[in-house]
Amino acid sequence: MAFFIRTALAAAFTLLAVNTTSAQTPAPAALPDPAATSVDALGWMKGFPPPPDKLITFDNPAGGVFPRTRWSFSHVRETVPTANVWRGSGAASPLPAATSPVQIEAVTFKPLGSTGNEQTLNFAQMISGTYTDGILVMHRGKVVYEKYFGALTPERPHIAMSVTKSFVGTLAAILADEGKLDPSALVTQYIPELKDTAYGDATVRQVMDMTVGVHYSENYADPKAEIWDYARAGGMLTQGPNYTGPKSFYEFLVTLKKEGEHGDAFAYKTVNAEVLAWVLRRASNQSLADLLSEKIWRRIGAEQDAYFMVDRIGTESGGGGLNTVLRDLARFGETLRNGGRATNGQQAIAKAVVDDIQRGGDPARFVKAGYPLLQGWSYRDMWWVSHNPHGAYMARGIHGQSIYIDPKAEMVIVRYAAHPVAANGANDPLTLPAFQALGEALMRP
Amino acid sequence: MAFFIRTALAAAFTLLAVNTTSAQTPAPAALPDPAATSVDALGWMKGFPPPPDKLITFDNPAGGVFPRTRWSFSHVRETVPTANVWRGSGAASPLPAATSPVQIEAVTFKPLGSTGNEQTLNFAQMISGTYTDGILVMHRGKVVYEKYFGALTPERPHIAMSVTKSFVGTLAAILADEGKLDPSALVTQYIPELKDTAYGDATVRQVMDMTVGVHYSENYADPKAEIWDYARAGGMLTQGPNYTGPKSFYEFLVTLKKEGEHGDAFAYKTVNAEVLAWVLRRASNQSLADLLSEKIWRRIGAEQDAYFMVDRIGTESGGGGLNTVLRDLARFGETLRNGGRATNGQQAIAKAVVDDIQRGGDPARFVKAGYPLLQGWSYRDMWWVSHNPHGAYMARGIHGQSIYIDPKAEMVIVRYAAHPVAANGANDPLTLPAFQALGEALMRP
Repeated sequence: MAFFIRTALAAAFTLLAVNTTSAQTPAPAALPDPAATSVDALGWMKGFPPPPDKLITFDNPAGGVFPRTRWSFSHVRETVPTANVWRGSGAASPLPAATSPVQIEAVTFKPLGSTGNEQTLNFAQMISGTYTDGILVMHRGKVVYEKYFGALTPERPHIAMSVTKSFVGTLAAILADEGKLDPSALVTQYIPELKDTAYGDATVRQVMDMTVGVHYSENYADPKAEIWDYARAGGMLTQGPNYTGPKSFYEFLVTLKKEGEHGDAFAYKTVNAEVLAWVLRRASNQSLADLLSEKIWRRIGAEQDAYFMVDRIGTESGGGGLNTVLRDLARFGETLRNGGRATNGQQAIAKAVVDDIQRGGDPARFVKAGYPLLQGWSYRDMWWVSHNPHGAYMARGIHGQSIYIDPKAEMVIVRYAAHPVAANGANDPLTLPAFQALGEALMRP
Repeated sequence: MAFFIRTALAAAFTLLAVNTTSAQTPAPAALPDPAATSVDALGWMKGFPPPPDKLITFDNPAGGVFPRTRWSFSHVRETVPTANVWRGSGAASPLPAATSPVQIEAVTFKPLGSTGNEQTLNFAQMISGTYTDGILVMHRGKVVYEKYFGALTPERPHIAMSVTKSFVGTLAAILADEGKLDPSALVTQYIPELKDTAYGDATVRQVMDMTVGVHYSENYADPKAEIWDYARAGGMLTQGPNYTGPKSFYEFLVTLKKEGEHGDAFAYKTVNAEVLAWVLRRASNQSLADLLSEKIWRRIGAEQDAYFMVDRIGTESGGGGLNTVLRDLARFGETLRNGGRATNGQQAIAKAVVDDIQRGGDPARFVKAGYPLLQGWSYRDMWWVSHNPHGAYMARGIHGQSIYIDPKAEMVIVRYAAHPVAANGANDPLTLPAFQALGEALMRP
């Protein structure tokens, strides 16, 4: 039985690998018309029962292939087991709308990699051209834009893909700030079981910043890449009747071997987020879902519960398994933009934690990973930091999931999407300049 | 791969079959000490990962066997796919605590079937003796008692088992009251696919009151009973590699054959609830989860989302798949007790609907089903109506799940449990007289 989101969700953990993120993105003409792929247009899962050709099920790999992802990314929990992230019992924190309309859609930008002959695009074209399921823009604490497409609605959670990792990294920074986690300690101080693995001589900080030398390939074009072993162990792919490999995230993580040195270069590998999630559980004696609820979800005044996909023993995927409503992603981004102060005025996250993220990592380590579209960036606490003049930083997940925080423009953009191409290399040429242009436009008097 | 709650959840749909509900309940001495079976005592699923002998997983049938059920009944969604029942975005309706303490635990009663030699028991002994996971008592609109045991906490949903059916029946009564469903119509008016089945000449009302003549056995002691086909079709049991039978609730329901006459006798069969759920979807053009959210959950001011277990095509189990927090079950019961007025003062459910439930069905049809402990009762809109001097009525699910509404005593009791014996015949001898005695005690000045 193949996991229904084989190509998509398993690929969720495949992010920006060097060979999939070059500036040579597919020509837009090669991609289907976004409007023609909406759930309304294609009618997935309508009716009781839906017609056979409109069904999306766990045991049919087609469910993970675009355009079915426009439905399945907003319906993950209807197909797999999950762990709930409780919002608490209080009122949701405010998310006030701007009182006067702000022109957003007409803001223009030039796609990355343009040689001068391409047409200038506008923000609305970026939204549709990246198969957006939902997008929300906040400026100076007010919602200036909020739109939903596809199967997504304001109250329905969407899979955050690797945006999940930035929550895990933030939780690590929070526990470190509280003195409950020592980033300079060896990982094995928390997880002795990792002694004979790549993580045997790595520090927690190296895991938090993904500078671990570990043999693990996320090239999902290669059927022998470790990403598939990972997905099989985590229950995202069938293990089959004669399967003898690892049967949980934990069992998989203890098989990882060292390759190269630690601390030298940024190397984006999802297993680091799973190891960090394990460290957090041991340091806090809480499940990742409960820890996220206590330290972030309840504090920012989320309006809906979130949830994680889990493996067969109930372990949350810290690498890409979080699902949230878009508005709560906005609350989280806005909380960070305000130095940790939530929209209800409470100091939800310590300012020192936010400062540490915003300051970023070492661009010299980042450059070794070779991202042509992310020149000058760094990676810190599982956040992508641009070091651009606005000091913008991002949480990023495949198929277009993003939190974009532009401190100078006092702007936060959150976007859920179902782009046909997983790697952000296909998204970035439109998304990055559009986000930057909007920040600049909002700053103009 | 066997369904982890094979004996328990599949059995959820096995209720009060005649041969399992006689007054000959197992002697209390034959049952394990409840305190020794608590999650704290036994340590299920503690640690990252939990020790192998403390693991509860979907693919190990032991997970469904007591005492593991004391954990698994409060963690259903961590092992199976689910559909969310949204609570809405408003504030939860009040559930005020009583200002002065009310003596509850010392209230005494005599177990049913006592011959005079047995000890009189008190309410506290009923609570522990029925392996209660959580119990809440309301009197005159105030919470006079609320306690949690085992893995259950105020914010964690517990499986409601066949209490689910009473929600489905109430929804049917609501749609009928709104003119959107005709109880006197043939089922085939809504589901033409059922033409050649037992339901081909049955009315919606006969389904609502379970007076349908259908060949379907819920005797789960018999491996050939249709309950297993039902569970396999609904994805609650593995379908196996060579399985060629029905693969969804709908595919199973169209196989059901007529046996006997309709309208003659009450015959408790879970498939009726699944057929009614299907009728509701067709009549409302909404999923059962969305319909429950719109018509009940948002209106009563629930404090948490609820959720349904679903089959492989996302169809909710209307027979036993609902999970809620105990406090929301109390809100629902209190709403009915107040003629449909929720605790926030809103008329959440039409009074005519509540009156129809409370009035009950025809005891002459009920008596033919032969429940020795439920003499004089009837069944209406998928509720169990006692016709006792207090006019009490109940929603009932195996292993002790219950809503007990005593209009004369102005009392509502809700209780989630994990009794080792599925059938309520093991629970009723303690539960029914204890509930009745508490109602009488609360009425005393």
